[in-house]
Amino acid sequence: MSDIDRLVQLLAKLPGLGPRSARRAALFLLKRREVLMEPLAAALAETAQRISACSVCGNLDTADPCALCRDPKRDAGVICVVEDVSDLWAIERSGSFNGRYHVLGGTLSALEGVGPEDLHIDALVSRAAAGALREIILAMNATVEGQTTAHYIMDRLAGSGVQLSRLAHGVPVGGELDYLDEGTLAAALAARQPLTSGA
Amino acid sequence: MSDIDRLVQLLAKLPGLGPRSARRAALFLLKRREVLMEPLAAALAETAQRISACSVCGNLDTADPCALCRDPKRDAGVICVVEDVSDLWAIERSGSFNGRYHVLGGTLSALEGVGPEDLHIDALVSRAAAGALREIILAMNATVEGQTTAHYIMDRLAGSGVQLSRLAHGVPVGGELDYLDEGTLAAALAARQPLTSGA
Repeated sequence: MSDIDRLVQLLAKLPGLGPRSARRAALFLLKRREVLMEPLAAALAETAQRISACSVCGNLDTADPCALCRDPKRDAGVICVVEDVSDLWAIERSGSFNGRYHVLGGTLSALEGVGPEDLHIDALVSRAAAGALREIILAMNATVEGQTTAHYIMDRLAGSGVQLSRLAHGVPVGGELDYLDEGTLAAALAARQPLTSGA
Repeated sequence: MSDIDRLVQLLAKLPGLGPRSARRAALFLLKRREVLMEPLAAALAETAQRISACSVCGNLDTADPCALCRDPKRDAGVICVVEDVSDLWAIERSGSFNGRYHVLGGTLSALEGVGPEDLHIDALVSRAAAGALREIILAMNATVEGQTTAHYIMDRLAGSGVQLSRLAHGVPVGGELDYLDEGTLAAALAARQPLTSGA
């Protein structure tokens, strides 16, 4: 197999790239050798070598504990539990959370044989038992697996004395009611917020 | 900027990957460090270093002249002229051409300021003048730029004594007439092929 074929084959394994777009990407790279291909090769090699999972929260970072766990400006009394690092990134992009995280590494799934021992749940229970925590936000996806996992964690954390909470359900900002599923609409109605009338 | 941000930024420059899918790809890679991320980094670095443009035909290969130009089993009397290496790859995948190639590196475009001196046209004229050629197939895309380039090359090769040809226009194999543009249908009708009647 030629160098190019091997490169195309590896690129085609990336999510979002099929065989055709992988060929296109390979040619695009070959035409931009110095400005893109070599920097990308270096970034991949360096990142692969330097990044590891934070032993406290499971976030991916060059340092362990990660920058978020070491940041003294972040509230150590609140932990936001997420399924995956991508969820942590999404919440960080929103810029609306200033506590710590805990990455489970997936969800419970009988179908795929994922049990509690496959997720970082014991570590979360230990963090809750270590004290100094006021609140744990269960920010799993609003899917069956995510909610099953949230319920399991609620059971495990019962009696820890830490306040548990979950993300609010409702109408996405910018969302149109006509395109929303019934479950979301029902949740948004049930959790409706009072408005101040008049002045 | 963190290592991961830099990696995401570089990945997002690939065609077919936006910022969102670049993040997904980066995380996908970070979770498959040994089986995908490190091999991809090595493949990129090696390919960037080893691949260069063939000085004869413009194909990308580890050797110069490229494997296609050196292959004694390929017919040196026929040259297929293509716009880009991706077109060469496409024709090679079809497995229906056994001659040599000539990669122009683009098309003439007044709008983008691409003139004949920006394409490998002089080299093609030299190859035609060197003799031993029976046929030159102009396999440019069936676009305005492609056909303009083909006409320009026809003019340049006039009097070279080499037979020029172009790809046939017609109904794509597996294509449905209802979805074809009028130009293709007209071309397919005009170039209709006689069928032998009866036995």
